[in-house]
Amino acid sequence: MDSDRRIERVLLVAIESLSSPASPPGLLAATHHAVFPGGARIRPRLCLAVAAAYGDPAPEVTDAVAAAVELIHCASLVHDDLPCFDDAPLRRGQPSVHRAFGEPLAVLTGDQLIVLAFEALARGAFHAVASGVMDARKAVRFFEVLAAGVGMPQGIIAGQAWESEGKVPLATYRRAKTGALFEAAAVLGALSAGQDGGAWGALGQRIGEAYQVADDVLDLIGQPEDMGKPAGRDGALGRPNTAMELGLSGTTRLLQRLIQDALESVPTCPRADDVRSWAMELGDRLMSACRSRVAGVAAASSA
Amino acid sequence: MDSDRRIERVLLVAIESLSSPASPPGLLAATHHAVFPGGARIRPRLCLAVAAAYGDPAPEVTDAVAAAVELIHCASLVHDDLPCFDDAPLRRGQPSVHRAFGEPLAVLTGDQLIVLAFEALARGAFHAVASGVMDARKAVRFFEVLAAGVGMPQGIIAGQAWESEGKVPLATYRRAKTGALFEAAAVLGALSAGQDGGAWGALGQRIGEAYQVADDVLDLIGQPEDMGKPAGRDGALGRPNTAMELGLSGTTRLLQRLIQDALESVPTCPRADDVRSWAMELGDRLMSACRSRVAGVAAASSA
Repeated sequence: MDSDRRIERVLLVAIESLSSPASPPGLLAATHHAVFPGGARIRPRLCLAVAAAYGDPAPEVTDAVAAAVELIHCASLVHDDLPCFDDAPLRRGQPSVHRAFGEPLAVLTGDQLIVLAFEALARGAFHAVASGVMDARKAVRFFEVLAAGVGMPQGIIAGQAWESEGKVPLATYRRAKTGALFEAAAVLGALSAGQDGGAWGALGQRIGEAYQVADDVLDLIGQPEDMGKPAGRDGALGRPNTAMELGLSGTTRLLQRLIQDALESVPTCPRADDVRSWAMELGDRLMSACRSRVAGVAAASSA
Repeated sequence: MDSDRRIERVLLVAIESLSSPASPPGLLAATHHAVFPGGARIRPRLCLAVAAAYGDPAPEVTDAVAAAVELIHCASLVHDDLPCFDDAPLRRGQPSVHRAFGEPLAVLTGDQLIVLAFEALARGAFHAVASGVMDARKAVRFFEVLAAGVGMPQGIIAGQAWESEGKVPLATYRRAKTGALFEAAAVLGALSAGQDGGAWGALGQRIGEAYQVADDVLDLIGQPEDMGKPAGRDGALGRPNTAMELGLSGTTRLLQRLIQDALESVPTCPRADDVRSWAMELGDRLMSACRSRVAGVAAASSA
């Protein structure tokens, strides 16, 4: 099964586990809406790519960590889109959860997805212990790694919370808001293969930064139909945007450097070349998305 | 150490684990505010009482499950108090989190507390496996039980979501909104003592219902200074309230019956009498709180 189908399948199994005649139908529908259709699913793809570097010896565990990471990401999108944050009308080309289902169900959908993520992670972690992939004393690392990617001091919740502070340390904000969950995804992929995982954090960080930079370019000059969400939000909301700071050519140079750094950060492992190919292909896609936007803007301004 | 001090200590350790110079200070303060000072801490006290029925053989595990349950409860209060739900100005005698810190940080505080709860649970569950209290194949039960108490189909998030539905099945709503987390607390207390735990669900349910009924009486006729939150919210928000339906004398009879049911539901265990004494003492406190309020209302109406 290819990675994309595998990811959709594990997410669907997780979401369908909530379905019961006793479930409140609105919340059930909102939870499905928050996860399907998906975006690039880049975080769970990173989990799978890192596990594959070791031959993916325990695919049920890899499935569980990939689902957990993507469910957390979906939860963060639902809560970040709320009226008290971005008040985003669109997400992934459809109405945001609070626009489609109301604000109360959007708050609860995010909460439910966080709970579901940790339940999925628990199934993976105990499967890892029961099948001998991981010692029980070490398996608590699965939770420490995901919690560090999500919560304080430097996970995505902390990143979002910096937007409520008067003075924001920019590097801390960026690393927390995007990088932390990518870092967790890479480390969890390695843990699911029975590795210590720590050496993979740098790859996750670099991929996360590259993704954020590309997203900043699209936010600055993208069209809503490309993105499935409104463009120009960072400027409107007074948030830092690399493309606004460095200009477009500076930003594409930064993106190239980040992808190069990502390739160099891949630790020694049985199939390092496969991971590097995966990262290179991802980098090419990010670069070409940015370049085509920049070319579009140049053509429009010289017309 | 007595139960009250033990619970405050484990909660403080959990909250302080978030503190770091890299943590956003507003979110850190809001998270502390959401947990301290506490309310009755009745759910973690239930965990401890059930574990004690077996001599509390693994106190670190019991501490972890007690912390997890109370952190989830605190998260639910923060989110339920939000403007899109109750818009409650007060909680536990101080401003609610969104009134004190703003709505964005209140959303994030609830999220952070859910993550922290599952991280605490993970430490307890893996400690249970590593120390031989629980087999790795069974330890996933810790997560299944907490997730069932919190999420769909019948946990507290589902209970809250029923308020967004036109037609609410009343028994389902009540059981989910309050009973589910009490049930999880009782079962987790037994799991932390290495027991299967399922037999304790009924005690949790009965205690939860008794607590909800007493809370309904206080909501109907309490004073904000007794309760640390506004009175009369159920009526104002159109929510079901047992005391409004049954009248005060019918409600006190129901409360007596629920406490009797709770006592009878205690399963066979080494120290069943201790658990029954604990439940009886709790029941007496709930009854006397209701009776003193009813007497106050009678005196005021005959004056």
